[in-house]
Amino acid sequence: MKETEPKKDWKTRLHGIIYEAETKEGKLFDVILLIFILASVLLVMLESVKSINEKYYTILNISEWIITILFTIEYILRVISIKKPLSYIFSFYGIIDLLSTIPKYLSFIIVGSHNLIALRALRLLRVFRILKLTRYVGASNRLIIALKASKTKIAVFLFFVIILCTILGTIMYIIEGQENGFTNIPKSIYWAIVTLTTVGFGDITPQTPFGQFIASIIMILGYAIIAIPTGIVSSEMTKNNQEIENNTEVCPNCAIEHHKENAKHCYNCGSKLHS
Amino acid sequence: MKETEPKKDWKTRLHGIIYEAETKEGKLFDVILLIFILASVLLVMLESVKSINEKYYTILNISEWIITILFTIEYILRVISIKKPLSYIFSFYGIIDLLSTIPKYLSFIIVGSHNLIALRALRLLRVFRILKLTRYVGASNRLIIALKASKTKIAVFLFFVIILCTILGTIMYIIEGQENGFTNIPKSIYWAIVTLTTVGFGDITPQTPFGQFIASIIMILGYAIIAIPTGIVSSEMTKNNQEIENNTEVCPNCAIEHHKENAKHCYNCGSKLHS
Amino acid sequence: MKETEPKKDWKTRLHGIIYEAETKEGKLFDVILLIFILASVLLVMLESVKSINEKYYTILNISEWIITILFTIEYILRVISIKKPLSYIFSFYGIIDLLSTIPKYLSFIIVGSHNLIALRALRLLRVFRILKLTRYVGASNRLIIALKASKTKIAVFLFFVIILCTILGTIMYIIEGQENGFTNIPKSIYWAIVTLTTVGFGDITPQTPFGQFIASIIMILGYAIIAIPTGIVSSEMTKNNQEIENNTEVCPNCAIEHHKENAKHCYNCGSKLHS
Amino acid sequence: MKETEPKKDWKTRLHGIIYEAETKEGKLFDVILLIFILASVLLVMLESVKSINEKYYTILNISEWIITILFTIEYILRVISIKKPLSYIFSFYGIIDLLSTIPKYLSFIIVGSHNLIALRALRLLRVFRILKLTRYVGASNRLIIALKASKTKIAVFLFFVIILCTILGTIMYIIEGQENGFTNIPKSIYWAIVTLTTVGFGDITPQTPFGQFIASIIMILGYAIIAIPTGIVSSEMTKNNQEIENNTEVCPNCAIEHHKENAKHCYNCGSKLHS
Repeated sequence: MKETEPKKDWKTRLHGIIYEAETKEGKLFDVILLIFILASVLLVMLESVKSINEKYYTILNISEWIITILFTIEYILRVISIKKPLSYIFSFYGIIDLLSTIPKYLSFIIVGSHNLIALRALRLLRVFRILKLTRYVGASNRLIIALKASKTKIAVFLFFVIILCTILGTIMYIIEGQENGFTNIPKSIYWAIVTLTTVGFGDITPQTPFGQFIASIIMILGYAIIAIPTGIVSSEMTKNNQEIENNTEVCPNCAIEHHKENAKHCYNCGSKLHS
Repeated sequence: MKETEPKKDWKTRLHGIIYEAETKEGKLFDVILLIFILASVLLVMLESVKSINEKYYTILNISEWIITILFTIEYILRVISIKKPLSYIFSFYGIIDLLSTIPKYLSFIIVGSHNLIALRALRLLRVFRILKLTRYVGASNRLIIALKASKTKIAVFLFFVIILCTILGTIMYIIEGQENGFTNIPKSIYWAIVTLTTVGFGDITPQTPFGQFIASIIMILGYAIIAIPTGIVSSEMTKNNQEIENNTEVCPNCAIEHHKENAKHCYNCGSKLHS
Repeated sequence: MKETEPKKDWKTRLHGIIYEAETKEGKLFDVILLIFILASVLLVMLESVKSINEKYYTILNISEWIITILFTIEYILRVISIKKPLSYIFSFYGIIDLLSTIPKYLSFIIVGSHNLIALRALRLLRVFRILKLTRYVGASNRLIIALKASKTKIAVFLFFVIILCTILGTIMYIIEGQENGFTNIPKSIYWAIVTLTTVGFGDITPQTPFGQFIASIIMILGYAIIAIPTGIVSSEMTKNNQEIENNTEVCPNCAIEHHKENAKHCYNCGSKLHS
Repeated sequence: MKETEPKKDWKTRLHGIIYEAETKEGKLFDVILLIFILASVLLVMLESVKSINEKYYTILNISEWIITILFTIEYILRVISIKKPLSYIFSFYGIIDLLSTIPKYLSFIIVGSHNLIALRALRLLRVFRILKLTRYVGASNRLIIALKASKTKIAVFLFFVIILCTILGTIMYIIEGQENGFTNIPKSIYWAIVTLTTVGFGDITPQTPFGQFIASIIMILGYAIIAIPTGIVSSEMTKNNQEIENNTEVCPNCAIEHHKENAKHCYNCGSKLHS
């Protein structure tokens, strides 16, 4: 295909470089973008470390400006080179691309109120640039198919987990009470989730023997019901396997199905398969 | 069906609205009920947060009375509109519906002893209203079928886990002793459950090298045997898949289902299948 | 079978009662034994709770003597009623039965040195009586078959986990050092096991940024490789399913296999199956 | 094979003893090596325990020298007895074998600066000798095949987990802030990993109600997505099973394997299969 390409206008070529990865330039663009995304996320992280930010403030700030300008150029090029700019602008990645660029400019405008928490939060939005990386994972992934297929079941499961934790949290609030750290029901539900999911921070722990008994039941419950989401995904992926493995070809002679994936002859009558 | 509906008496219509979700009114009733259940659970939670309860006591109390009265009306309507009221009253949801209504009335009667722990517990029973939500999940769910099928196996597994924790807890009590937090066997068993289920609160931890060695074994054991309930549910759900995927054909002679995928004859009566 | 039983000598009858559960007396014996085992384990636990032991010392001591004498009688009857007493005495349950009986008698002999730790440990051996309960779970259990089949794979997996933890523990000892709680390599390995198995007590935690980075890798590793034992058992149980579900009967007419479990007719030729 | 062995030169015999395990001497060599590896790893561990190292310094040092010399001899013999010494020297195990030997000699040279951390780290490299044990696990293991097959999927999964933790960590840093232990973004990401993987050390815990709410979501997420790697490996191993279980018949014409279970004709060349 590459050889037969006729002369293209710059817009089509730009589109090829930015949106596709088939040409050499397209691949190079992707690699460079990837490096800048990672560098940008690293910058956000380093800025948050007080000692580093104080010492290398100027370097970090300049680097961040360079990256922001480059991402701005990328954003503009993406808008220009596409046929329907609006469909890009309001797409998931379009919004991410924009959101990860503006915070730095805002810090330029509201320079006096540098420490505003809302602004700090906005600036941290740049970390969402990491989501751009997900572009590089094929969306038609078998993993994602299996997850989508088990969506409803997992939702039902999570629904039960939340109901369970609500009730267990309330019970623990009654048993342990405020003197043992279970100060209110929302906090007790938080504890029930910490326990049922086998996370177990240990910031709140039951102190009464009866509370520890109920906690034991919650833990064993959590240990057993972790089997449910696993079972759902496992069975979905196994099904997936079977479907994909099964050749859908039909024998032209005896019309039998379910040939091996690389079969050249029918396993039933031996006649040649077309493919 | 909707068009051909003849005139119905009010009892049948009420039954349709409350117990079914096929008519427009039925759906609306369900949505409103759902909102009130969630609101009611939220109220119980907010009441338990001291600062909120002190500040907004009147609002919370009034809201709770409104919800309680509405649930009482719902309960009465459910009893009236059903043909066999007793079967509803003594059903699981019937008991939940009643239990979630009375506590508030009791607080009215025993107004003086407002801080009684038993009463507080009773009032919190209203949180069980959340169980009403489970009505909205189809009971014939495949997930539940798989779980029911693996009931015995999971019971055997839990039985082994409890025996294991009893023995491991006792061993740790001997090794670590009272000076390291393992004050008695029930507490040591509680610790063994915390560890085996990979929760790991950290409120009690082994201090002696030998205790840490045994703890390591318990942890690796817990890490490995979590595979068992998962394996049970996975295999059950995979089986489930296969059965459901199987031939949907019905025998033209004996009307039996679930034939093998490549079956030419009914496995029950032997008559020829068309396909 | 019950009706056709001829007159039997007392030894055979005793054997039937103690070792089997087919007669009414056999079932009754099992239920009583089960209650006594649970009571005996409960006693050991209660004795370990200081406050309870001090208050109810006499009651606990007498109850324990009653149970010990009953278990002694049971042990003697088991030895008498079996044809090959030695095979019972040296069997797993024979040893458990004996071990759970002697400690109490030893406490009678060495009455002066009542607080000896070794003796206390011996007395706690009575908790092993709980293992007697495993008698009531069919040994031919499908669960156990699947576990036995995956024995080697799980051993290989545990072997890798131990090697991994040894290396990771040593690395963390180098990075974090003695000042951050990683006082020596065995303790660091203990920490690596706590972390990899996702238990996470939190008694030792990495303090340096690099240590936290390595810890993150260990955690993600542990989160991912928990999939391995689960995968092993799941696939083994699924295989198991398939094997058990597959009818091994062969059609007497066309000799085809893999009939449905409840098939009466061959799915291929329709001829009647014998069974 | 053993009986028909002709006279071999010492090099071939040495190769047979060291690299293979078919002869009696080869097996003996392996067992001895295994014991020495375990002893050597144990020595490294014991040396790190201050109290033991101080008390038994001379014994530990001498034992370590003996083991180091033996491993040196083993290394030299391995280099001599193989046809292509370089391929061994630069192989994975060749490097491990060398790395686990030199540190002790280095400690001899740089004897004055005995406490240098870099050197201590080098000496601990000897713990990598434990990796030699992996030689004894068949590389063609089914477990490893299944893991290799699911390599890409697990990489994608880990990639998502890291992106998720980056974003969740940043969000928690914004919500909780420096006053609650979330001092910077890298530390918050560390916390997100600790929480999502259900490890839950508890060294950093959310203090604000909103932070606890987000933490609850992270925990439930972690509890649910652990199903993904498990599902991947389970389905891969189940597939594995099916492939291996499949027909072991070999085509009499083209010698191809892995026919379908009920195949009558070879799927490759179409010639009739006998069965």
